[in-house]
Amino acid sequence: MRRVSRSSIALGSAVGDKARARWGTEQKGDAMSRKALVEAARGDRQLDLIIRGGDLLNVYTGEVYAADIGIFGDRIAVVDQGQRYGLTGAVELDARGMIAIPGMIDTHVHIESTMVTPPNFARAVLPFGTTTVVIDPHEIANVSGQAGVEYMLRSSEGLPLRVYVTIPSSVPAVPEIETAGATFGPEAIAAMLAWPRVVGVAELMDYVGIVRQSPRTAAIAEAGLAHGQTLEGHAPLLGGRELAAYLAAGVDSDHEARDWPEIVEKLRAGMWIYCRENTFRRMASGLARALQAIPHPWNVAVCTDDIDPADLLDHGHIDRGVRVLIEQGVDPALAIRFATLNGAMRYGLHDLGAIAPGKLADIVLVDSLHDLRARVVLAGGQIVARDGALTNDLVDPVPPPLQNSVHIRPLTDDSFRMRRPGASGPQTLKILAINANRTTQLDEAQLSFANGELQLPLPEDLVLISVVPRHGQPHEPSLALLRGLGLREGAIATTVAHDSHNLIVAGRTPEDMRTAAQAVADMGGGAALVADGALLARVRLPVAGLMSAEPVPVVAAEVRAFNQRARELGLGGTSPVLAISSLALPVAPFFRITDLGVVNTLTQELVG
Amino acid sequence: MRRVSRSSIALGSAVGDKARARWGTEQKGDAMSRKALVEAARGDRQLDLIIRGGDLLNVYTGEVYAADIGIFGDRIAVVDQGQRYGLTGAVELDARGMIAIPGMIDTHVHIESTMVTPPNFARAVLPFGTTTVVIDPHEIANVSGQAGVEYMLRSSEGLPLRVYVTIPSSVPAVPEIETAGATFGPEAIAAMLAWPRVVGVAELMDYVGIVRQSPRTAAIAEAGLAHGQTLEGHAPLLGGRELAAYLAAGVDSDHEARDWPEIVEKLRAGMWIYCRENTFRRMASGLARALQAIPHPWNVAVCTDDIDPADLLDHGHIDRGVRVLIEQGVDPALAIRFATLNGAMRYGLHDLGAIAPGKLADIVLVDSLHDLRARVVLAGGQIVARDGALTNDLVDPVPPPLQNSVHIRPLTDDSFRMRRPGASGPQTLKILAINANRTTQLDEAQLSFANGELQLPLPEDLVLISVVPRHGQPHEPSLALLRGLGLREGAIATTVAHDSHNLIVAGRTPEDMRTAAQAVADMGGGAALVADGALLARVRLPVAGLMSAEPVPVVAAEVRAFNQRARELGLGGTSPVLAISSLALPVAPFFRITDLGVVNTLTQELVG
Repeated sequence: MRRVSRSSIALGSAVGDKARARWGTEQKGDAMSRKALVEAARGDRQLDLIIRGGDLLNVYTGEVYAADIGIFGDRIAVVDQGQRYGLTGAVELDARGMIAIPGMIDTHVHIESTMVTPPNFARAVLPFGTTTVVIDPHEIANVSGQAGVEYMLRSSEGLPLRVYVTIPSSVPAVPEIETAGATFGPEAIAAMLAWPRVVGVAELMDYVGIVRQSPRTAAIAEAGLAHGQTLEGHAPLLGGRELAAYLAAGVDSDHEARDWPEIVEKLRAGMWIYCRENTFRRMASGLARALQAIPHPWNVAVCTDDIDPADLLDHGHIDRGVRVLIEQGVDPALAIRFATLNGAMRYGLHDLGAIAPGKLADIVLVDSLHDLRARVVLAGGQIVARDGALTNDLVDPVPPPLQNSVHIRPLTDDSFRMRRPGASGPQTLKILAINANRTTQLDEAQLSFANGELQLPLPEDLVLISVVPRHGQPHEPSLALLRGLGLREGAIATTVAHDSHNLIVAGRTPEDMRTAAQAVADMGGGAALVADGALLARVRLPVAGLMSAEPVPVVAAEVRAFNQRARELGLGGTSPVLAISSLALPVAPFFRITDLGVVNTLTQELVG
Repeated sequence: MRRVSRSSIALGSAVGDKARARWGTEQKGDAMSRKALVEAARGDRQLDLIIRGGDLLNVYTGEVYAADIGIFGDRIAVVDQGQRYGLTGAVELDARGMIAIPGMIDTHVHIESTMVTPPNFARAVLPFGTTTVVIDPHEIANVSGQAGVEYMLRSSEGLPLRVYVTIPSSVPAVPEIETAGATFGPEAIAAMLAWPRVVGVAELMDYVGIVRQSPRTAAIAEAGLAHGQTLEGHAPLLGGRELAAYLAAGVDSDHEARDWPEIVEKLRAGMWIYCRENTFRRMASGLARALQAIPHPWNVAVCTDDIDPADLLDHGHIDRGVRVLIEQGVDPALAIRFATLNGAMRYGLHDLGAIAPGKLADIVLVDSLHDLRARVVLAGGQIVARDGALTNDLVDPVPPPLQNSVHIRPLTDDSFRMRRPGASGPQTLKILAINANRTTQLDEAQLSFANGELQLPLPEDLVLISVVPRHGQPHEPSLALLRGLGLREGAIATTVAHDSHNLIVAGRTPEDMRTAAQAVADMGGGAALVADGALLARVRLPVAGLMSAEPVPVVAAEVRAFNQRARELGLGGTSPVLAISSLALPVAPFFRITDLGVVNTLTQELVG
């Protein structure tokens, strides 16, 4: 038995070693409960629950047929196709007119992106039929290191939502060009790979480092392989021999592919494609197009990656991606297999992903395989949600920690004033520019200086952008000019600043930038929108500066209000509160700004 | 790192812990070789071998297209669809006119059934394109316990054939009604599950004990689940709630299903079906029929289980089953996926089963996906066979042991004389009878006794059958009458007597039975055919009484000669040398004879 070796980590009795993680949630006394399950399956012990009168989608075969389902404890004991056995049980659930599908599996999600804690995330996604998630807690890890990963494990323990963990590989993604609140080297990652419920090394975002075999990144990958863990990928636009190199390094999944030819190339290369459908990216229609070229798809699963709280309430969770695949012509039996059995297979979670004897009883009853709205959701044999609402509230395993994580040096308006010693008159400056497809480029702009200081107001399409170190780093904020954000006045600031989660701020004036940044710092993290010195909207995220302690509807309301005001100031995108959050991400093409300055993300160098 | 804990077992450097087993054959210095592989993949280091000008079957997508394959070391570095990269390498292999498919995987095989040692088995199957086998060494384990399992590991170490091991669960299958040369309890099995290259608990043949949850068998299953290992099944004719019970116990594969409705029921229940096509059983046509009912097959792999040496040479190995599936209408892309990627997935062998960057370079070049004859076979990037022959001979890792394993008490003609104290004249006796479908029943026969002794000659359709304890047990041989064997004269004896491998002998006269049994004992094991006191044919199997130290063609020649003589005496079946070998198997329906007497295999009781 592998155990957590640090006695200070009480990760608990309800989670076992990796072998047990992969076989579900077996606990002490398993042999006895297994015997009782077998007795119930063969008819010598009363079943606890019968799901009667409905149809079943068999994800092994792709068939739909009438079947009663007999549950004992937390597992499926027997499936009675055609009602041959006359099952009886202590409780009956009327499933007439409904179809049972397996509980859905999200193969890659950052809970922090929904701005809530794991229990509140579970409260929100269970009613949509998601019963298992594989999380990458790399947002909180970049803020608070191992303590953050431990919190995500502890706070998800015993929830009806099964939470498996991949260990963040990119804390930070590229230490040479950014600083975060923590740094994970190969040894730290190897130690965490032995923790319970850990099923992989999380997305190796430094895909350039993998292809180049930079020593740190290669050593992290090797630590994962040595533990027999999957290496999760992140490889936007990677193709050709660089894609081969990435796969040769042992990284074999991706959720970043964009157009269908990229998806086809990656599927052919043996890479698992996690169909990502979320607030910011839509892969399902591209995947559906790709599947038209593929006679027998195999290596496909479904994930959400990042989903904002309002969007989650409005559009659903994994069901959303599956729905789009089906709308786009993918056979529902295949689309649902991707979101269930395939996800389980990918991570070796043998007890999940199907409705069959011996499997854990995670089941969703839907009215239609096309609509896929969850009418009843069962997790571990218990009814946890009906018609979009939890049937009983959950218990939070631990209170949210890390409520004091924003540590910045004192700000002044000067912090965001751009200077070029000696410059006067018009100057040609290199600036950042956002492209239509959300990649970024270096561009140039003509700007006026006086006495070495950039003159305001800025031209209409430009803003200042800065990353303020918020993990107690001793250096000053970085500062650059940005075209294409859309902000016409005021400033926006947030500690949701992928992935190092410093404090990023963009604005038309240094004064509003300072006000917005200070407001975020004063809240202990979150987002603030300011114009003419006034705070127009805010989202409070005091848990590690990333999450609220409130439930999704409360956070969603703040986000909606924020987004409405932000749109009025010209910010676009599906969730304007996050309009600048990815501009600090040094593993997204092609130029970004970190706390250390503007970086070329392909060469992984600071731009002078 | 898990290591073999007994210092007396030098299972060696070339095999790692389980994690490494699942990720292929990584060795010390992996990180360095991984770096070189990545460099070769991206084009910064010369490739070792190019397979140029051929087509490729992509098992992920089901497509066939032109592609060059670049190999570095033992892995595939890059696949060049449409020759875009202009790959160059130290060696080139001309694949024009050929199609590359992944090396095939046998998900369940008893090497002992081919009557050769692992190196000789590898010599025979590699030319057919099988590059990985998952063995169940339960024949040798029933003779010599852990030492037998160790021998199978040691003797397969470093071979180009990748040999993974499942730990025999049925040593013996039902200890209450048979005795073998060893007994494995749950503790012994748990210890062996930690050995290198171990990927599961081998077929739980005592399916009755699983369904009933008999303490020993349930504890063996639980040991496997606690180790996160697959539990392999053996469940002929099991259906309905008993099948549910078997699956609920965690056993989720089967290679014994017979007709297509049984196959469909098991696939629907989530059971892996290993399509078994061998000397004795043919599942492929039934599976092909079953697949007509299944829109999207998933849980299917291919195995051989038991294949006799002559049959292997004549008809091939895993390619044979795949060929039949294709002949019966299964899409070649799916049939080959079953025999490659699916087998790898079933056991979590992530580095096997596909031709893609990073995978181990086990590749078969065939002329046609329908014919599937292996023209060139590569294992770990090395060409190991061409046109049906090895390109270089292999090295036997260790000499064959256990050449003195037949320990019987002195035999006399009286050993096989049937007595009923006091009986005289015609008597009605219960006898064993072989049914047309190879199951067995109890039947009755009228036989004449004088002075308490059965009178000879026996009626035409009857023989005497006996199981002689050969593991040093202190008891006398069992003895019964059998109808339906076909033997018209003489006797046949063999130490291949599933699965306890005592010495089974059947004959028309006690004298010939004694002569045959003694001949087998004198050879140290094997099979003997006797008539009128003369030895007509023999197969010498001195290694544990199950295997020869000679290569397959030598053993096949002995088997062919034996079979020809045996047919002349009336013995039928595809391999008459094994005509009585399964009659001692107490987990086959419905009545068998063990060393303890006639047993009812459903109630697991001795018949009076």
